[in-house]
Amino acid sequence: MINVGVLGATGAVGQRFVQLLSDHPWFNLQTLTASERSAGKSYCDAVNWRLDEPFPESAGEIIVKDTTVDCVKDLDLVFSALPADLAGGLETAIADAGVGVFSNASSHRMDVDVPLVVPEVNPDHLGLIDVQRDRGRDGFIVTNPNCSTIVMVMALNPIRNRSFSDVRVATMQAISGAGFQGVSAMEIYDNVVPYIGSEEKKMETEPLKIMGRLDGSVIQNAGFSVSASCHRVPVIDGHTLAIWADVKEEPDLIKDDFRNYRAPFSGLPTQPTKSIHFFDKEQDRPQPRLDRRRGDGMTVSVGRVREGLRFIAMGHNTIRGAAGASVMNAELAVSKKVL
Amino acid sequence: MINVGVLGATGAVGQRFVQLLSDHPWFNLQTLTASERSAGKSYCDAVNWRLDEPFPESAGEIIVKDTTVDCVKDLDLVFSALPADLAGGLETAIADAGVGVFSNASSHRMDVDVPLVVPEVNPDHLGLIDVQRDRGRDGFIVTNPNCSTIVMVMALNPIRNRSFSDVRVATMQAISGAGFQGVSAMEIYDNVVPYIGSEEKKMETEPLKIMGRLDGSVIQNAGFSVSASCHRVPVIDGHTLAIWADVKEEPDLIKDDFRNYRAPFSGLPTQPTKSIHFFDKEQDRPQPRLDRRRGDGMTVSVGRVREGLRFIAMGHNTIRGAAGASVMNAELAVSKKVL
Amino acid sequence: MINVGVLGATGAVGQRFVQLLSDHPWFNLQTLTASERSAGKSYCDAVNWRLDEPFPESAGEIIVKDTTVDCVKDLDLVFSALPADLAGGLETAIADAGVGVFSNASSHRMDVDVPLVVPEVNPDHLGLIDVQRDRGRDGFIVTNPNCSTIVMVMALNPIRNRSFSDVRVATMQAISGAGFQGVSAMEIYDNVVPYIGSEEKKMETEPLKIMGRLDGSVIQNAGFSVSASCHRVPVIDGHTLAIWADVKEEPDLIKDDFRNYRAPFSGLPTQPTKSIHFFDKEQDRPQPRLDRRRGDGMTVSVGRVREGLRFIAMGHNTIRGAAGASVMNAELAVSKKVL
Amino acid sequence: MINVGVLGATGAVGQRFVQLLSDHPWFNLQTLTASERSAGKSYCDAVNWRLDEPFPESAGEIIVKDTTVDCVKDLDLVFSALPADLAGGLETAIADAGVGVFSNASSHRMDVDVPLVVPEVNPDHLGLIDVQRDRGRDGFIVTNPNCSTIVMVMALNPIRNRSFSDVRVATMQAISGAGFQGVSAMEIYDNVVPYIGSEEKKMETEPLKIMGRLDGSVIQNAGFSVSASCHRVPVIDGHTLAIWADVKEEPDLIKDDFRNYRAPFSGLPTQPTKSIHFFDKEQDRPQPRLDRRRGDGMTVSVGRVREGLRFIAMGHNTIRGAAGASVMNAELAVSKKVL
Repeated sequence: MINVGVLGATGAVGQRFVQLLSDHPWFNLQTLTASERSAGKSYCDAVNWRLDEPFPESAGEIIVKDTTVDCVKDLDLVFSALPADLAGGLETAIADAGVGVFSNASSHRMDVDVPLVVPEVNPDHLGLIDVQRDRGRDGFIVTNPNCSTIVMVMALNPIRNRSFSDVRVATMQAISGAGFQGVSAMEIYDNVVPYIGSEEKKMETEPLKIMGRLDGSVIQNAGFSVSASCHRVPVIDGHTLAIWADVKEEPDLIKDDFRNYRAPFSGLPTQPTKSIHFFDKEQDRPQPRLDRRRGDGMTVSVGRVREGLRFIAMGHNTIRGAAGASVMNAELAVSKKVL
Repeated sequence: MINVGVLGATGAVGQRFVQLLSDHPWFNLQTLTASERSAGKSYCDAVNWRLDEPFPESAGEIIVKDTTVDCVKDLDLVFSALPADLAGGLETAIADAGVGVFSNASSHRMDVDVPLVVPEVNPDHLGLIDVQRDRGRDGFIVTNPNCSTIVMVMALNPIRNRSFSDVRVATMQAISGAGFQGVSAMEIYDNVVPYIGSEEKKMETEPLKIMGRLDGSVIQNAGFSVSASCHRVPVIDGHTLAIWADVKEEPDLIKDDFRNYRAPFSGLPTQPTKSIHFFDKEQDRPQPRLDRRRGDGMTVSVGRVREGLRFIAMGHNTIRGAAGASVMNAELAVSKKVL
Repeated sequence: MINVGVLGATGAVGQRFVQLLSDHPWFNLQTLTASERSAGKSYCDAVNWRLDEPFPESAGEIIVKDTTVDCVKDLDLVFSALPADLAGGLETAIADAGVGVFSNASSHRMDVDVPLVVPEVNPDHLGLIDVQRDRGRDGFIVTNPNCSTIVMVMALNPIRNRSFSDVRVATMQAISGAGFQGVSAMEIYDNVVPYIGSEEKKMETEPLKIMGRLDGSVIQNAGFSVSASCHRVPVIDGHTLAIWADVKEEPDLIKDDFRNYRAPFSGLPTQPTKSIHFFDKEQDRPQPRLDRRRGDGMTVSVGRVREGLRFIAMGHNTIRGAAGASVMNAELAVSKKVL
Repeated sequence: MINVGVLGATGAVGQRFVQLLSDHPWFNLQTLTASERSAGKSYCDAVNWRLDEPFPESAGEIIVKDTTVDCVKDLDLVFSALPADLAGGLETAIADAGVGVFSNASSHRMDVDVPLVVPEVNPDHLGLIDVQRDRGRDGFIVTNPNCSTIVMVMALNPIRNRSFSDVRVATMQAISGAGFQGVSAMEIYDNVVPYIGSEEKKMETEPLKIMGRLDGSVIQNAGFSVSASCHRVPVIDGHTLAIWADVKEEPDLIKDDFRNYRAPFSGLPTQPTKSIHFFDKEQDRPQPRLDRRRGDGMTVSVGRVREGLRFIAMGHNTIRGAAGASVMNAELAVSKKVL
């Protein structure tokens, strides 16, 4: 068993990490950290559990620690659900102290030697870990993309060999993406908020790195551009994306791509049976409430492939788009014997 | 005073017509029609009033009639909130019987001699009424576009002289657009439905006619294409649109277009003070709950003009996008002495 | 294995039956019936699956039959999700034909020789089956109560030995209780509807039978009265009840009752580990979104026990309050060797 | 004109005050205060306007001041939307400085010489102002009740001569009652929260004072008790109450009370035409979305009078239940020449 911890374990993404790790076949959840205020309490007292999945009793007795390097330096790896303003320095220090850091924070995503990984899309980018080690770091940092970016690149992945250069995407994003207190009910109920801070920029830069090519020790960005318009809608979980890509091929060929897509590997504990669920006939799917729990939240659903080329992609933003993404990255690293 | 009636007065759009007409300075609301089941009842007994505006007591005592040509043939004009399957034949017969028909139904929108009008955008298209008369019709039909189309062309209108050929639009449409019973709560609550029957096709064809040029007796379609992706979201009223248009000019110039836009006429009773409300500084507007009631529901709000060119447009779908559109068309016709 | 069928398998409660039965350790799901329109199709084609749990593939290939006596007369037992207007005659005929009927419909609930059962509350009422058999019926009918009634009697059960005579209950009921099409989004979004047809009457009569005493072949009604006020709120699943009961004892004693309550039996496949989840310290629980999935939807949650005596009860209305109730009744009957 | 100010003008209730006062026929809105952070800005820059009514442009240019006694001591009266922790001391100091304070805060509601007034219910309680003056205070404080309490006492008022001693009430309260940031979307969406801090206690004490009798300089509390269960539901505006009162008379007599009720005075600017809207025939009303705007938000709606005695009451919580209540109290005081 590999000893792991979660940094920032009481927030929305932190709770998802605990849910996914409390009963994990490879990882032994040993340490939970939070703010000073929670340190010293048992996790069940420190956390205000807000997931609709039952509270994992086994984690309840863990005594929460303050978020410091010392508290986690003896672990094999940590998962970071820290807010971006804290994550930058702390993750660097923890990686320097010899621990593998799998982070959901945005701080290091665009660092040149930090892999930004979606397992099915660019597993080879884990090779950048060696670059970090070559410059003397004992541990390493691996990041996963922004939640909307993950859904988009998962959906573009089956058609990446169709050449496209111009991607447009309009998102309809769930409330949980902003954390438990991030959106007030008065803001979003009976409403659409056509703005999510810095989200469009992330969607326009991260995919180019993820779908880029690892060339020696450097990522060569992919050769398309993304123009995003991001919107919050009154949905609890599940980001829905309307995507345009200027592929030349007919929709029927593209449908084949989605229909025939298989992940390039199998057997990771958090990996769903189907990475992509393709709605071939249903004209009104995917829908977040009905489809977000497919593959325990790790499957991305794709439908309505029409000329244009237009299609709809949807995925669970705090599982596939955040905590689950990070856990599966760690599983991938373990399976590749990177640790 | 001009004597008017409403066809299909008990449905969602019908109720909006009654609300807008019950106290109108030019129009005397005389006749309300509905299905046979309601005929003979007073309107207050026949209708299940679902608008959050108070019931217009003055209309309550009108005895509802069955929807036939005979019932309305002595009126000066009628507003049609009929479903498309009924509207086609009935509206033709009523127009032939000498009545001016202002219709929200889709049946005749694309007929070559029927104007498809948004007052601020193509008032001159009312000239097609003469074409109808020239072929011997005593009355005439004027239609208004689909609700999403109206919001889009209102928002494209201030920049129509910037040349663009490729428009993409992702809509986030309100529940009321489907009528009172059109969407069940189990379908849309905590959900997005990425499909609205025939909506995309309407958005891709109607704007070309509306923004086309009346050339003698024929409309020359506008020279751009539209690619639409339409989605239902959990919002009561107000359609939000994310629009891309391939204009060459810088966003700042385009902002000037919106900022300086003024309607080409003024003084119609239903016309708002500002046809377009432009959000210059706010980065998270327009929002349907906060902005749909601007100009009593007749103002279209525009914001988030960014490079791309991308921007957000939002308007009240059952007022500006349906009943109010039709009433303002009739006012325009009256002001142009078409009746 | 016991061969079973579901009557009305395509509706909201029917789909829950299929979900619960498709993988059941004791029951072999063999027959699914629906309206004539669906007959002859495979279940996966006939049903518009709307649950957020994944579609049970094993049931997908079953060919749906029309709902007749002939189609089910060779089964051991059937579960009925029929609407009340159909259920009355059909269930009688099926029971007469020798089949055990476990019905969620209201038609036979108050029949003198039909047990109205909640397993933890009145398992002995299954004795009425003998009364049905004594008058020559080959099969039998067992009913479960209305969804709100179940939550209430489950919550009153731990304190039934505290004498009370006056129960008041205000319900906040979920949308799914009305079926998939029962409530339109325009009716309930941003709204409360303070009326649910015939619900108050059910809540005022059914508990007296359920908590009554089986005296020979007759139920002696319980000696308290219920006054109910029923309201629909914008919640997908989970009925919340504010209950007053005029018990004399202090809240602390009553809390002990809830804290110490254990079901009178164990081991039924659908039975949850805890029939009652008691919130001892949390002052803002139970909440439907967070607590409805406890015990896979079969646990009723109780909290906020205050003087008055007032408390809050909440349960999943289509699982514990409908399909799960019926399935657990059948399991109870099997365990008592009634079949 | 009477010069007035609003304390705490940027919050949810503060914005309602500004909306109601910006165009008031008797009151000249001169001063707006907020936290130090906003002081010095114009109101249009300081406020994040979240009401769906349009922003009152006339108030936009007022320069916001810090909330101190000095800033308002030259006004005739102020309206207080301060949070309870600030209101206590500040309101006392302002009243002592000679200003009439009409407060929506709870701090002074139960003070023995402070009137707790709902105009239609206990206008004579304004007589307590003399008690304040008799002890040397130059100004005075008048309070209005908690939002749920107002709806309840407005609904009990028409039947106050029917003797009842035991009132039970279950509330379904709107999100706006907690202010713009008070309830996060993750807390309340698809959910009911069966707890609102200190609300039940307010509902159990305030009505006894309001419906009590002013006996010389002392209020004799009314002789009934209230048992409340308070719940938050996903509704933007409008509190719905299910009320039981142990009146002896038949529901038909009680219906007459509601049907025939008229306010004891008329002509106040904020007073609605009908203080009570009684739903005589409709079995599913009142409903918050459809009825909250009756009488511009000042009418309380009552319906579903049934034996028990049970009935439903509903009113707009931030207008009739907060800012409008306070403004109408001030109008009443002016009309009684108290200032």
